[in-house]
Amino acid sequence: MRQATTLLEVPTERQGLREITREVAGWAGGQGMREGLLTLFCRHTSASLLVQENAAPDARADLERYFARIAPEGGDYAHDDEGPDDMPAHLRAALTAVQLAIPLIDGRLALGTWQGIYLFEHRRRPHRRTIALHLLGD
Amino acid sequence: MRQATTLLEVPTERQGLREITREVAGWAGGQGMREGLLTLFCRHTSASLLVQENAAPDARADLERYFARIAPEGGDYAHDDEGPDDMPAHLRAALTAVQLAIPLIDGRLALGTWQGIYLFEHRRRPHRRTIALHLLGD
Amino acid sequence: MRQATTLLEVPTERQGLREITREVAGWAGGQGMREGLLTLFCRHTSASLLVQENAAPDARADLERYFARIAPEGGDYAHDDEGPDDMPAHLRAALTAVQLAIPLIDGRLALGTWQGIYLFEHRRRPHRRTIALHLLGD
Repeated sequence: MRQATTLLEVPTERQGLREITREVAGWAGGQGMREGLLTLFCRHTSASLLVQENAAPDARADLERYFARIAPEGGDYAHDDEGPDDMPAHLRAALTAVQLAIPLIDGRLALGTWQGIYLFEHRRRPHRRTIALHLLGD
Repeated sequence: MRQATTLLEVPTERQGLREITREVAGWAGGQGMREGLLTLFCRHTSASLLVQENAAPDARADLERYFARIAPEGGDYAHDDEGPDDMPAHLRAALTAVQLAIPLIDGRLALGTWQGIYLFEHRRRPHRRTIALHLLGD
Repeated sequence: MRQATTLLEVPTERQGLREITREVAGWAGGQGMREGLLTLFCRHTSASLLVQENAAPDARADLERYFARIAPEGGDYAHDDEGPDDMPAHLRAALTAVQLAIPLIDGRLALGTWQGIYLFEHRRRPHRRTIALHLLGD
């Protein structure tokens, strides 16, 4: 068994879900393994990871609106050093995932038919985000 | 170190939590390893995974009611192709886990005394769900 | 490739976020690996794990207040065997993470600059919590 790691850089242009399935599957596929485990780790506290519906843009828009509603800007937050979207970003990150692990079976990530991997940008301004990728297997 | 993978099929009869600890621990135990890491990956965007209280049925019912309340049917969703339980299912999945990893120590999953592994079905109709299992260890 | 496991005991004094980055990184660093994957698994259903902002105490206080608000004591819960903070503890655990996995790159956990690892104690009384740690790598 062997392992490989990399840091994937993901530029984000706006708040919301940005699909990264292709970049992630491309790197994993390039390591020449048939069976293994891929781990993604988001190195930020104001962006997060989500596996969600990859077919319906409506579902993505509803997801973005939902998290904007349950962790809203304008709440009574003590922490607002970086503006009104600062603390809601941490809350939305806490409610979703900082890390994902996906088995590799027969040379392919075991994603379901309708699953895509998304970076969820919670800040309003564009950012360069970094996701640590770790793959181990044979 | 070696690895094993399988696809576990889980039929669900209704919306809510369905315990799968026995099926998961049974497969993992059958691989003859003493120390390792088990990963579960739910291949769906309208069902998810949860480790929760395995003793009190009341706690499970409260959990189900809670998620029905914070991600309700009848919200103002753009995405409702498959009915009123469609978009809430995606939201409830996003709030819980698509993936779990549990260490194997001394030949047993390192679950706490009161922890059970659950598939959380978010759709009203029965479904056949698939969970990818990956175990590596010695 | 090789692996190591341990059970990390974490005493909690009060409800809220308790940083465990130093203990976790210390154990992982002591295994002498350069590249690998560290998994943390919280063996409880009324405490959980969170990677969050490690610099601003205000952000931690806002996080604690937020989860107290969206999964409040005094809700209409069937399960209250252990008091009013019992069921909200399960809900807050379900909304955050029971498990985290962090790649090890160049001998260091791939945490971002502002990321700390926290045990999130959801009960009011002090507890002794146990986190299973699993590291594999080279």
